[in-house]
Amino acid sequence: MMFRQLFDHASCTYTYLIADPVINAAILVDPVLEQVDRDLKLLDELGLTLQFCLETHIHADHVTGTGKLRDIAGCLGIVPQGAQASCADRYIQDLELLELGKVIIQALATPGHTDNHMAYMVNGNLILTGDALLIRGCGRTDFQGGDAGTLYDTITQRLFTLPDTTLVYPGHDYRGFTASTIGEEKQWNLRIVGRDRDSFVQFMSHLDLPDPKKMMEAIPANEECGRVSVVV
Amino acid sequence: MMFRQLFDHASCTYTYLIADPVINAAILVDPVLEQVDRDLKLLDELGLTLQFCLETHIHADHVTGTGKLRDIAGCLGIVPQGAQASCADRYIQDLELLELGKVIIQALATPGHTDNHMAYMVNGNLILTGDALLIRGCGRTDFQGGDAGTLYDTITQRLFTLPDTTLVYPGHDYRGFTASTIGEEKQWNLRIVGRDRDSFVQFMSHLDLPDPKKMMEAIPANEECGRVSVVV
Repeated sequence: MMFRQLFDHASCTYTYLIADPVINAAILVDPVLEQVDRDLKLLDELGLTLQFCLETHIHADHVTGTGKLRDIAGCLGIVPQGAQASCADRYIQDLELLELGKVIIQALATPGHTDNHMAYMVNGNLILTGDALLIRGCGRTDFQGGDAGTLYDTITQRLFTLPDTTLVYPGHDYRGFTASTIGEEKQWNLRIVGRDRDSFVQFMSHLDLPDPKKMMEAIPANEECGRVSVVV
Repeated sequence: MMFRQLFDHASCTYTYLIADPVINAAILVDPVLEQVDRDLKLLDELGLTLQFCLETHIHADHVTGTGKLRDIAGCLGIVPQGAQASCADRYIQDLELLELGKVIIQALATPGHTDNHMAYMVNGNLILTGDALLIRGCGRTDFQGGDAGTLYDTITQRLFTLPDTTLVYPGHDYRGFTASTIGEEKQWNLRIVGRDRDSFVQFMSHLDLPDPKKMMEAIPANEECGRVSVVV
């Protein structure tokens, strides 16, 4: 398997390129519109054909690159079952497998940051946690059907029950971390550790964060798979 | 081996944490002063003792965290042989090995960006290239004894003769790339590919880049291992 972590500085978003180099087929997870040219160039240089663009959720902080990638590369856009994106080519549901040669990706329903959010386990030992679980943090829960209690359950009952050695690759990072493990987060993620469900809900309700700068543009655009016509 | 890539947004610098978790001992390569608290916290959480801070070169774009880390964690600061840093605890020379449990790091003299620059091969299959070789780029050569012809020789005769599968982890990235391979860079690094030595020298002499913002502060501070008293 080929695995590449890519970063968008403006939104602090991680995009993941996952490929089976034997069949030269690739998936991009959470691509960013402004980085489409970079990502297409990289795919071309690596001799990979983009088969799927996979979203962990409908993003509020950046516009997805899926629509543009689909137009140019002819890939399929996949979003979590239930997500408000009628434009998608395919919906993926809890525990469903997506296979790409020897790469096996399993969707894990991980709601709470948004109402329809999937994490993706890759080949059983690495998980893309989207905005459900960040390194020493978690996604906010104050819009798009977010629910702090649900996120607490997702993290403690679903993600923290994975093997401690599972590598964690988040959807964002703002402090320069690139990876973690489930074991580390179980011990050191102070958003969760030492808090019961009620105190987590209480804590999350007092974050008082401003809306993401691009929210009013990003959500409607992403509900159309980031189609450039919608963005422009 | 434990391997973590860490990023400093302000200077786009990658710091690398390399550890043998069996003996709980760690090395930081190219730490950044402003990230010392983050890095110490991470080491503490991972239960690691910092043994060495290792520099690829004397940096001009950020102040090293080595002095502060040495004061707090009691590690040894290691710089390339010949580097202007009389403060160092140890100098490392071409082909010298640094062992930390089962982690074996070999220094490779890779001058050109600066006159004394080392890349570090980790366990034979991963190389930290510092500012000699960046992903689809290379370091500038217009100060600190930099020499474009020397850098061309370093890249083409030393780095590009490593196995194609060797993973490349650079000292900086400005476009969101985190890793590459020697094979990829041999094919797609257009600073080098398709240019002979003379045309590379010519190209590098016309970059017309402004000096790094922190240069006047960073170089003297780094010649003192980033000692905070010098910085302040």
